[in-house]
Formats: sequence, C-alpha cells, structure tokens
Amino acid sequence: MTKVTAQMSVSLDGYYAGPRSPGDPHDMAAFLEGLEGPGFFRVTRWVIDAMAWRERLGYAGGERSVNSEIVEETFAAAGAYVMGRRMFDGGEIPWGEVPPFRAPVFVVTHREREIVRRQGGTSFTFVTDGIERAVALAREAADGRDVAVAGGGTLLRQVLAAGLLDELELHIVPVLLGDGMRLFDGGLGLDAREGIELTPARVIQTPEVTHIRYAIGPRTKLELDDRGADG
Amino acid sequence: MTKVTAQMSVSLDGYYAGPRSPGDPHDMAAFLEGLEGPGFFRVTRWVIDAMAWRERLGYAGGERSVNSEIVEETFAAAGAYVMGRRMFDGGEIPWGEVPPFRAPVFVVTHREREIVRRQGGTSFTFVTDGIERAVALAREAADGRDVAVAGGGTLLRQVLAAGLLDELELHIVPVLLGDGMRLFDGGLGLDAREGIELTPARVIQTPEVTHIRYAIGPRTKLELDDRGADG
Repeated sequence: MTKVTAQMSVSLDGYYAGPRSPGDPHDMAAFLEGLEGPGFFRVTRWVIDAMAWRERLGYAGGERSVNSEIVEETFAAAGAYVMGRRMFDGGEIPWGEVPPFRAPVFVVTHREREIVRRQGGTSFTFVTDGIERAVALAREAADGRDVAVAGGGTLLRQVLAAGLLDELELHIVPVLLGDGMRLFDGGLGLDAREGIELTPARVIQTPEVTHIRYAIGPRTKLELDDRGADG
Repeated sequence: MTKVTAQMSVSLDGYYAGPRSPGDPHDMAAFLEGLEGPGFFRVTRWVIDAMAWRERLGYAGGERSVNSEIVEETFAAAGAYVMGRRMFDGGEIPWGEVPPFRAPVFVVTHREREIVRRQGGTSFTFVTDGIERAVALAREAADGRDVAVAGGGTLLRQVLAAGLLDELELHIVPVLLGDGMRLFDGGLGLDAREGIELTPARVIQTPEVTHIRYAIGPRTKLELDDRGADG
C-alpha cells in the first residue's frame, strides 16, 4: 500500500542548511558563496559519500556502507516524489540530464510550466493547485510504491500540517550548526496544548549519522501529568 | 576522571517545555495553568514513569524498565550538579525536604543567598560569579564522579558555548510540540561558518524515548564539499 514518506538530514540542533541565501535559487555560484551551503553540505555529507548516491549521479568513488544501503533503500521505496519549488529550482541544473529520482516528480509551485522530461525515468510535473493535489497525483503515479516528499523543509512542514504524511525518517547528523534553515520552525498549525504523537519504527546508528524513522500518529491533546506524588 | 555532562529530554522538534510561562517560577499553580507545563510533562513523562525516579522522590508505583535504568545510571554518575536559577526556583518547593539529587548542587544566579542544606545529601550553593566558577566548584565537590548540568536549557547552552561540556545526552521523545522553549535556539556563539562536531557514543532505543549520548568535540570550520562530480 502506498505510504507518504519524508526523509530529511538535519543537524542535532535541527537545521538542514545554513542561513538561507537570498536571491535566485538557480544561481549555484551565489549558493556556494553564501552561508546556506556550508551547513547544507555538512548535514548531507553522509549522502554525498554513499556509493548508492554517487552511482545514481554518475560520480566515481563512494563508500559501500550501512549509510549507502539506506540511500539505496530510500530510492527503491519511492515510486513518485513531491517536491517544493525552491528545491527544484536549486536542483534543476546540478541534477543534469539524468536526475537521480528515476520516477515522476510533482513540484508544488505557483508558476505554470510544461512538464519536463529527463532521461532515466525522471519527469517534473508542475502542480499549481496545492499540496493535496500534488500528493494525490504522486499517489496515482507511484504505482503501489511510496510517495516520497523530497523536500525542502517548507513543503515537508506543509505536508505534515495537512495530515498527509504517514512516515518521517530523520537522519540526525552529529553536529551543532547554531543557525540556519530549521526543519521544525513552527508552522505545523498545532494548537497550544496539542502535539503530534509519533511512533519510533526503526533506529539505525552509524558513526556519521543516526537514522530514526517514525510513524506519524494523530494530533493529541497534551495533558498535565498527575502521576507525581499521588501516583 | 570527572566529566562535565548534560542530559535533557526534548521533543523531536527540539522543545523541552511548552511556551514559557511568565511570572514567578516559584508559583506552581501558575505553571500548571500556563502553556509551559503540558509540553514539559509530555517530554519528561518517561522519567516520571520510571521506578528509579519515583523511588528517589518517595512516590509509589513506577516501571522497572530500560528507561528506569537510564535514570538510575544518570543519578549514580553525578557527584555534583550545576543548575540554572529558574530551574532551582521552579523545583525548590516540589522537591521538598529530601530532593532527588543527594549531592551538592551549584545554582548559577545573580542573587546572593546562604547555602541551603536539605536531607539526603543535597545542598544548594548559590554562585554569583559565573558558570566557570560554578563548574569549578562542582568539579571539586564531585569527588571524582561527574558534574551534571541539571538544566535548564539556558544554562546548558551557556556551558556548551563556554566549551565546558564534555558529554551531552539527549532523550528524544517521539512527539512534535510545534512551539515552546527550545533547547537549541542559537546562543552557542558560533561564527556563521563554524559548527561544533559531536561523536555519537551510545544510542538506546525504547518505544517511549530514544537516548543518544554524544561526546562534544571542537568547534570546526564548515567546509564546502567538493566531492561531487569531481570525486
């Protein structure tokens, strides 16, 4: 059965990149000169080093490791992707003619654009009528495999807030960045006394990163706990 | 050899309590009526349920579990504590005549106050000349065991930013709170292209909470990663 999943690499203090670089996300030179890049490359280093990622991108080298197996498994599980507009803009050029997704990608955007077809099975469809519609289209396209929310953080929060996410895997990288683009910066639309309960489904520890997968549960009222002295 | 350690229970989105309740932290009724409490009790529920905690507080009930063993181990490792002023103010009354620490506690504060001696080995010494001094006094008092930074979050960040912390254990609770008092809200004094590297030392997974212990490494310059297409 198709699940909607999301994966994100974050620092222990919750950042998935350094402070946001202003300007056109297509401008890779500006990205590399700005503050966003150093944090981004630090938290995604374990991916960049993984054989499974490098093979997908056609790069040489790479490590066969538990981390590489997790990258491979993540790609294999996804039958279609949902992606934020800013992530697409940043990736369009560096992903090249054979992007790593090898599956239909639905980009949530306000700008109409013709479908972009690349080699190796990747296509980018631009969805201008909201995340529910993008997820629904991805579900159809996934053909029984999972729909993966590819990022970025803004889209992930929106999908979570809309109650559309079934599973979240965080790759927690052992570094404190102190500042940057935060995955959980509010914006979940929770009431003040409400939380989203999760169920840990899998934890895999490597020296480079801790992988924790959660099943997303319902919104729940937070109760004051009276199991103190009376207990 | 004495290490300086810290432990903190946090939600997956990094909060250790709900949004900060204004007013006098001695005022438990206000705390319980405010927004801070529900989040605080949610992330510390695994402690409140643990036999080792309940025994220390003289409460009935409690679960013998891996989580309880971790509470016990944490208490046993600490020969002395360093504590923030707000945490002391909030705990002074509920901890009662036999506080759970059973060791000297050094409270970092701006207000002079005579040492407070309680039963069971707990004393509270008020240190008005800074965290370095409080940690130094706790080191002496710890008699070869560890110095534990008991909290709250503000003190923990200060100790970390000052380079005084050797080890950090986060107890990551599977819930998203969406808002509240955030453990890592900046304030680490890092330059924009600098991070604090950590080494995962231990991960213990239970259904209620994931315990991850890190050794704190040096501040390190974040490098742009060129292991892409050239690799």
